[in-house]
Amino acid sequence: MPHLSPVPTMSRVVTLARRPSGVPQPTDFSVEEVELPRLREGDVLVSNEWFSVDPSMRIRLHGGDSAYFASFAVGAPLEGWAVGRTVASEHPNFQVGDYVFHSAGWREHAVVAPTADAWTSPRVVDVSRSRPPQTYLGALGPSGLTSWAGLLHVAELREGDVVYVSAGAGAVGTLAVQIARLRGHRVIASAGSADKVRFLTDVLGADAAFSYRDGDLSDQLATHAPGGIDVYFDNVGGDHLDAALAHLNPGGRVALCGSISSYNETGASQPAVRNLFRAVEKGLTLRGFLARMFADRREEFQRDLHSWLESGSIRFPETIVRGLDAAPAAFTGLFSGQNLGKTLVQL
Amino acid sequence: MPHLSPVPTMSRVVTLARRPSGVPQPTDFSVEEVELPRLREGDVLVSNEWFSVDPSMRIRLHGGDSAYFASFAVGAPLEGWAVGRTVASEHPNFQVGDYVFHSAGWREHAVVAPTADAWTSPRVVDVSRSRPPQTYLGALGPSGLTSWAGLLHVAELREGDVVYVSAGAGAVGTLAVQIARLRGHRVIASAGSADKVRFLTDVLGADAAFSYRDGDLSDQLATHAPGGIDVYFDNVGGDHLDAALAHLNPGGRVALCGSISSYNETGASQPAVRNLFRAVEKGLTLRGFLARMFADRREEFQRDLHSWLESGSIRFPETIVRGLDAAPAAFTGLFSGQNLGKTLVQL
Repeated sequence: MPHLSPVPTMSRVVTLARRPSGVPQPTDFSVEEVELPRLREGDVLVSNEWFSVDPSMRIRLHGGDSAYFASFAVGAPLEGWAVGRTVASEHPNFQVGDYVFHSAGWREHAVVAPTADAWTSPRVVDVSRSRPPQTYLGALGPSGLTSWAGLLHVAELREGDVVYVSAGAGAVGTLAVQIARLRGHRVIASAGSADKVRFLTDVLGADAAFSYRDGDLSDQLATHAPGGIDVYFDNVGGDHLDAALAHLNPGGRVALCGSISSYNETGASQPAVRNLFRAVEKGLTLRGFLARMFADRREEFQRDLHSWLESGSIRFPETIVRGLDAAPAAFTGLFSGQNLGKTLVQL
Repeated sequence: MPHLSPVPTMSRVVTLARRPSGVPQPTDFSVEEVELPRLREGDVLVSNEWFSVDPSMRIRLHGGDSAYFASFAVGAPLEGWAVGRTVASEHPNFQVGDYVFHSAGWREHAVVAPTADAWTSPRVVDVSRSRPPQTYLGALGPSGLTSWAGLLHVAELREGDVVYVSAGAGAVGTLAVQIARLRGHRVIASAGSADKVRFLTDVLGADAAFSYRDGDLSDQLATHAPGGIDVYFDNVGGDHLDAALAHLNPGGRVALCGSISSYNETGASQPAVRNLFRAVEKGLTLRGFLARMFADRREEFQRDLHSWLESGSIRFPETIVRGLDAAPAAFTGLFSGQNLGKTLVQL
């Protein structure tokens, strides 16, 4: 078994110490040293360099599987998208030194093996100066596919549409804003601070932006989209969706991408949507999706995103924290609105 | 000006006495005698024989126009779909004796004139033994178009879909249940009484039915649709929609047709929907519509419905009240669940 660096036998992982109630706290997690399993035939040992911290992971911290988001067990390591280098391989398709994209993040080393699931199965990726490894977690990864598919294939973006993106300064929102702008649309975005609002207009080119903390959402949308909106890219749910429903034009479309306002809640405390009758009156279409539903378009999407990144047409802001011990705080930062763009842990 | 019967100069109308708060009461309405205007060029005087009483009219009793449902003025006559015979005409396309379908119901006589709006403009209809006049208010009218378009074009009914219809014993629901059955689907329906549940299974051929008063909606859906549902025809909104969202299969579709649970409420007391994240997880599509959005398919839909009615494949139950004075109670009966099928006033 050739190796690039000494093959470790021990490593560190982040585990779920207890199920958070409401907004997660760093103390809901713990960092532990574990023994790495011996590689069996088909296994690959990856030294993780980057892993992804995503709002939707919050769903997996609740007890009880949803069939779509398997629940993390208390005491067990967390998981998330990661990219790293192969340090040992018992699989013919993975060579020592290969960069591998896989779903066993939140740990310094991962033992992974290809599976039949094209979405989660680890795969070798092409890393270069224009494609640094962490790009596969963001613009060329699940965040990119989410924004690309959500706008183009779920909301079915059409010429002349006015587009509203909530959580516009997040990993998916920043890309959705820019892809819509690149295609010539008027784009309105919302975020949670004056700094993010400025970033959205001055750096990402949104035509208008506002902070949801600055006043009634519906009033602010009316001000910034006086002619209404045609497409709403929903990352928040609840009152953001209600405001969009009030201002969508007849025939408008909603890409239901995520619902960060609901992830910390369960049962009757889930944020309510009360404006769905507007969908009846105006013939609106709301369509939910997960990026993995578009896994078969990965090559097409990566071609688009890579060419936009290369030409400088798209920026992909990152909030990077360093080291495994900082990961829990990076995650909880998603819910206080302190992170800009994609939140990543660099090891 | 030829005439079939003496041309009246006075007639009676139902007016809005005051805006109802919550569930409407018959005392919110009053019956008044009014002088009929003299016909001007282009006008047609119709002696109404039947008019339609629909849940969505409740929306027009709130103050403030919604742009889609113009508010009725306090003191002014109500309006609704009607069919009657021409007793005097100053329009070349309408002859005395012609049956006319129009939108000036809730009155014994109506003066109407063609307009550019193909949906509401009065038009002569073909009345025969197999097409009695009130059929144009129900199966061959807006109720029929709503169920036909909602299932086939909004929910995009596909082979093998399991269909759930709420308010299954209402004007639209009875047709939706039967159209889905005719096309070979398994159909589950809900209603508000044991009698209606029996009617749905024993007369209309639903595979399963339950009363929403008999227990938790989600539990009842789980019992009657153990493999989940693929299409939900939503006439109720609120908790019925939440239950359907919980049991829709991946890729499922919702036709948002109406929301009777919300019509008596405004603002924060509107029924809440909390399960929209299920749409994200399962890639569901929710699409709102009004029948008038499908006005251009009227001929195609009437051909389908008429052939099903003629062959006896479809029944269209009616709750008929007689005389203008009974109209307010017929309307308020829609909200107490006492009416079965289409509610009609016969004059």
